[in-house]
Amino acid sequence: MKLKVYADRMSQPSRAILIFCKVNGIDFEEIHIELSKRQHLSPEFQAINPFKKVPAIVDGRFKLFESHAILIYLASAFPGVAHHWYPADVSRRARIQAVLDWHHLNLRRGAAGFVLNTVLAPLLGLPLNKQAAAEAEKVLISSLSTIENIWLKDDGLYLLGGFRPSIADLSLVCEIMQLQLLDEKDHDRILGPYKKVQQWIESTKNATKPHFHEVHNVLYKLKLRLSLKQSSQTDGEMKSGIKAPIASRM
Amino acid sequence: MKLKVYADRMSQPSRAILIFCKVNGIDFEEIHIELSKRQHLSPEFQAINPFKKVPAIVDGRFKLFESHAILIYLASAFPGVAHHWYPADVSRRARIQAVLDWHHLNLRRGAAGFVLNTVLAPLLGLPLNKQAAAEAEKVLISSLSTIENIWLKDDGLYLLGGFRPSIADLSLVCEIMQLQLLDEKDHDRILGPYKKVQQWIESTKNATKPHFHEVHNVLYKLKLRLSLKQSSQTDGEMKSGIKAPIASRM
Repeated sequence: MKLKVYADRMSQPSRAILIFCKVNGIDFEEIHIELSKRQHLSPEFQAINPFKKVPAIVDGRFKLFESHAILIYLASAFPGVAHHWYPADVSRRARIQAVLDWHHLNLRRGAAGFVLNTVLAPLLGLPLNKQAAAEAEKVLISSLSTIENIWLKDDGLYLLGGFRPSIADLSLVCEIMQLQLLDEKDHDRILGPYKKVQQWIESTKNATKPHFHEVHNVLYKLKLRLSLKQSSQTDGEMKSGIKAPIASRM
Repeated sequence: MKLKVYADRMSQPSRAILIFCKVNGIDFEEIHIELSKRQHLSPEFQAINPFKKVPAIVDGRFKLFESHAILIYLASAFPGVAHHWYPADVSRRARIQAVLDWHHLNLRRGAAGFVLNTVLAPLLGLPLNKQAAAEAEKVLISSLSTIENIWLKDDGLYLLGGFRPSIADLSLVCEIMQLQLLDEKDHDRILGPYKKVQQWIESTKNATKPHFHEVHNVLYKLKLRLSLKQSSQTDGEMKSGIKAPIASRM
């Protein structure tokens, strides 16, 4: 029975799983769980993942959620996966694990919190929380600085001095990609100082093309819509002198 | 060269690593990094762990931090470790990984945030933050409910229906043990409703004795000091009618 991947491409860990499967030629069926339509809350999906979150997978009778656990499982259970994604060497594997552990309370918390509270909240019908955005920004900037100065400090194109990407590279780059949704000024202010991070993102895109861009297409389209909306709002403001309200739905 | 474990027994992930080494007969040297004396900020320790956190290990020339990564490394690199701690079966391992991934943004965030903002902050010279305590309590209670109803839903004494403990049991129980520092009313109110969780904590203690209690001794002693301080404060309040200030150092 074919592997099933339950995902919404608007979710960054969903994107990481989909890219991983495509790059490694894993035969799978993508089942779209549309978060904006609250499909993750359905009893059917809850039977797959009691936490009601994407991504989740079903492989035969085996159900699994949490994106890092899924990446490790796929890299271990599917024989066609190239060694560099999750090397068998115990020390190398442990260091990849340390990056993945670090990710949760640092880059994920910072990036997701900042994007939610500066861009996404109104699209989800939630209020923007300036204090939460400011706190998330601190965590995000500290996380980017950590990636630049600690995880990317060695030679090599990838984290931990790697010359080929690991599951940690894919997971973290997909997390950072959501910063594309910020307005250009915020994006450049936040990512601009981190030259190694920028180079590493490019390397990861190159190593996973064309799948990286195909899976991120939904993000690029949303970015375009946000930019168009912003410029029409600016026009409106310039004409009327008042701010147009932000639409509360995607 | 003997494994070196850099730890402060006041830190819950440090305790998990120490218990794991002792239970599995791993030959190691415990190097005490006293957080209250800010020894984790020294340049010497920063050369071991650039994140300036305990626990960390050095095994020959290999340095590692992040407690889950350390547990996985020890279980994989030391041949004497019993199989049940981190089974070789890919599916079982993936489910343990999912619990460990879940831990970061749930139980850890809830338990550590609540204990810090109700008990520990004054001992560390920090102010108590009631709002942070209330938010952490919500996360903590939701996490305990998840452990009771999802991770412990199957038969078996341990998480995921296990009949022997895994590294996830040890990590999560050590996290919960810090709730011992709460006053009795808070402790019982929070843990009281979760009968399976209580039974699982006892099972984990039993499976790892006498090391579990030996390593937690520092916590039991602090609890005693806190109780004595609290009762002397209550006496003082009853005699003088005013509240005694809370000491700002341990």
